[in-house]
Amino acid sequence: MPEELLIDPKEDTTPRYKLIAEAVDNGDQQIAHDIISEASPDDQRRIIAQLDRQTREQLCELLPAEDTADLFENLAEAQAVELLEELPAGIAADVVEEMDADVSGDLLRELDQVDSEAILAEIDDQQESDELRDRVSYEWDSAGGMMSDQVVRFPATATVSDVLADLDNKAEEYSDADVQYFYVIDDAKRLIGVLTLRSLVLGRRSTLIQNLMLPEPISVSVHTKLEELEDIFDEKAYLGLPVIDEEGCLRGVVSRQAIEEALSENRTEDFLKSAGIVGGEELRSMPLRHRCTRRLAWLGPNILLNLLAASVIASYEDTLQAVIALAIFLPMVSDMSGCSGNQAVAVSIRELTLGIIQPRDYLRVLIKEGLLGITNGVVLGIVLGTIAAIWKGSLFLGLVIGSALTLNTILSVVLGGLIPLVLKRFKADPALASGPILTTCTDMCGFFLVLNLASMAITKL
Amino acid sequence: MPEELLIDPKEDTTPRYKLIAEAVDNGDQQIAHDIISEASPDDQRRIIAQLDRQTREQLCELLPAEDTADLFENLAEAQAVELLEELPAGIAADVVEEMDADVSGDLLRELDQVDSEAILAEIDDQQESDELRDRVSYEWDSAGGMMSDQVVRFPATATVSDVLADLDNKAEEYSDADVQYFYVIDDAKRLIGVLTLRSLVLGRRSTLIQNLMLPEPISVSVHTKLEELEDIFDEKAYLGLPVIDEEGCLRGVVSRQAIEEALSENRTEDFLKSAGIVGGEELRSMPLRHRCTRRLAWLGPNILLNLLAASVIASYEDTLQAVIALAIFLPMVSDMSGCSGNQAVAVSIRELTLGIIQPRDYLRVLIKEGLLGITNGVVLGIVLGTIAAIWKGSLFLGLVIGSALTLNTILSVVLGGLIPLVLKRFKADPALASGPILTTCTDMCGFFLVLNLASMAITKL
Repeated sequence: MPEELLIDPKEDTTPRYKLIAEAVDNGDQQIAHDIISEASPDDQRRIIAQLDRQTREQLCELLPAEDTADLFENLAEAQAVELLEELPAGIAADVVEEMDADVSGDLLRELDQVDSEAILAEIDDQQESDELRDRVSYEWDSAGGMMSDQVVRFPATATVSDVLADLDNKAEEYSDADVQYFYVIDDAKRLIGVLTLRSLVLGRRSTLIQNLMLPEPISVSVHTKLEELEDIFDEKAYLGLPVIDEEGCLRGVVSRQAIEEALSENRTEDFLKSAGIVGGEELRSMPLRHRCTRRLAWLGPNILLNLLAASVIASYEDTLQAVIALAIFLPMVSDMSGCSGNQAVAVSIRELTLGIIQPRDYLRVLIKEGLLGITNGVVLGIVLGTIAAIWKGSLFLGLVIGSALTLNTILSVVLGGLIPLVLKRFKADPALASGPILTTCTDMCGFFLVLNLASMAITKL
Repeated sequence: MPEELLIDPKEDTTPRYKLIAEAVDNGDQQIAHDIISEASPDDQRRIIAQLDRQTREQLCELLPAEDTADLFENLAEAQAVELLEELPAGIAADVVEEMDADVSGDLLRELDQVDSEAILAEIDDQQESDELRDRVSYEWDSAGGMMSDQVVRFPATATVSDVLADLDNKAEEYSDADVQYFYVIDDAKRLIGVLTLRSLVLGRRSTLIQNLMLPEPISVSVHTKLEELEDIFDEKAYLGLPVIDEEGCLRGVVSRQAIEEALSENRTEDFLKSAGIVGGEELRSMPLRHRCTRRLAWLGPNILLNLLAASVIASYEDTLQAVIALAIFLPMVSDMSGCSGNQAVAVSIRELTLGIIQPRDYLRVLIKEGLLGITNGVVLGIVLGTIAAIWKGSLFLGLVIGSALTLNTILSVVLGGLIPLVLKRFKADPALASGPILTTCTDMCGFFLVLNLASMAITKL
């Protein structure tokens, strides 16, 4: 079914974003609604990315708040945040009220303090805005930031037939698949038990649920962090866990799926950061200035690191002048050992994520990568050395290039393995900083090794 | 709680893997069981990684099959596959029988055909081994490969009280949190309906469930692929969907969580592949030869690509000889524009994943990256050009380096944006191939631009 939606026959004639733009111009709510609601989430993201800033803002104002909220829930988070920022606070508040609290909390958390307060101030329902403000104050990767507020709770003094009647009345609401457990609370709204389906369907209708519930259920605090939640869900087969605040009151449920999504988001960020997209996800629909400055913020320091490496070459100009062929191999030696080192970085980051190594396992990594570095270094050194010797007809040049690559590969692989551990130990982000640090080190050492070995053998070259 | 487990006081005296090794030597099942079952999943992964090959094999043989199966489910997949390969087929079969079918299916699928058949042949229960063989035949990223077989099904002719009695009898089994829906099947085991909790608890005890069920439930085929499943779960709030085979028989349930896990695995693989870890995840506990050859398999072709780039330098040796300072800036220009291009690669891969762009959106990417490339290229060019001019006291050298970096950045950013689209269109893997292709192009062009501009201005340098 989604396949069919993707191959939309309209796409070949008039693209949907143009039809939407037309509908917005004509103020035709129905057409806009039809196009958006028929599009798959993928297509919704694409359409919004294709619309210009003004049109997408007008679209959000044109659609009923409920439709806009649905649309926001399907967008990539970075898109939704951007769009929410653009909307007038009053309209944004209407949309936010229609979203699930975990989604709206995530979005508001990403906004400026000022923007977020402006929207919260426009929410009519005082209780709702208080709850949202509360939620925004939790870290995105804490149980409070990830929990769903769709939790079914009953007072301990309810009977089985009260519960069944309630389930019947709110069937619509509960059919929303997030409901998996029934929680029992006391008068102060503190979590005191959990009710299983089985005890409910098999209990007598007049029994009080406090006599059927499992008391002292396992719960987590609103402040429990993602890593710890991951461990808990790893260990037990729970689908969800109740989240309580400092007073022991039931605030929501954090599901295994929410944890999985947060972890997945972390991995995506690692991928982006390791490629130099830092400070949050970039979408091409963002303003050019914003995109340029964010990318430059990462490239800028790189110039300095590159200069550092280049200064090594500068101090050996005489050697280069004497054997110009070295200039051909300088970038090769540094590039290739950089690649070898990056492989080790990736393995370390992965093993840290899985808990297979801890930041204190230096020795293990040193030995394992050292042995691999020696093997691969020798293989690559022999190959490149042979190529250099034959190409330039100089055995000694081959020896210089080959041994430089061998030594630099060993160094780079060991460093690549260790850098993420050191960064992690000092609470820095391995995905972000490992690459630039490693590259600078291997460039410097690579240039130094080639040029220093060459100047020692200069009479033979 | 997991926090406490991580800071194990024993760790400071005798590390747990040594205690395990001792227990294995003494054949002391109880101690081995205690240590393993008290360790968190993170710690289990770490302990197994620290044990040598023989000891971990003996540990698996020493522990009861059920314990070993639990251990396997906590390990990283690559670890579990490796360990399963090492075990004698008979013991491996006992362990496999104790695992959930989705886990054992994933592991067996990763083994050699021969190894996997040897284990399947040792499974006594013919039906179980047939089902597993079936499951192994599905792709890992299809509904058949991801589904859980923990599905609660009832014949259409059962009554409400039959169902309640069954739920009561199998309470233990069903309390395992995977059960969320009740499915109704006909005599041929074909899926014909779904039963909601509400209709069950509110129905009369003597009613046949075929009169209460929702007929023609939404289902997916065993062959439905991950991407399509992602779209379906994106669009609707299902927690799980029934999976049927070609005959319409109910085979299992694929949960939203399984989809999320598979997507997360994909992202991890993208991260590893983009750093040159290809052909599957690498763990440092794998044999050295295996790790070396897998890493070399990716580095080897890189030598050739590097040579291609270096040959550009080789053809301008005269220019280099005349202006040796160029050698300092050659690696800088190619490195820096490579970094700029990699940022564009990461954004394209991310936008493709989100569905924001399609492989056919060349023009959009060209324009968006072109504008950014011009801006950042000019900024970086001016900065590096100025540095070069001041450092070497030559305005013309500054102009050559600055304009080479500007032009190469524009090219690299545009190429970086487009390469993933082209690879995706030709069904190649953007995460794997984008980096090496981009680097080769930007190295070649960077070297060419610097050296060609320099030879045109040679009299002024």
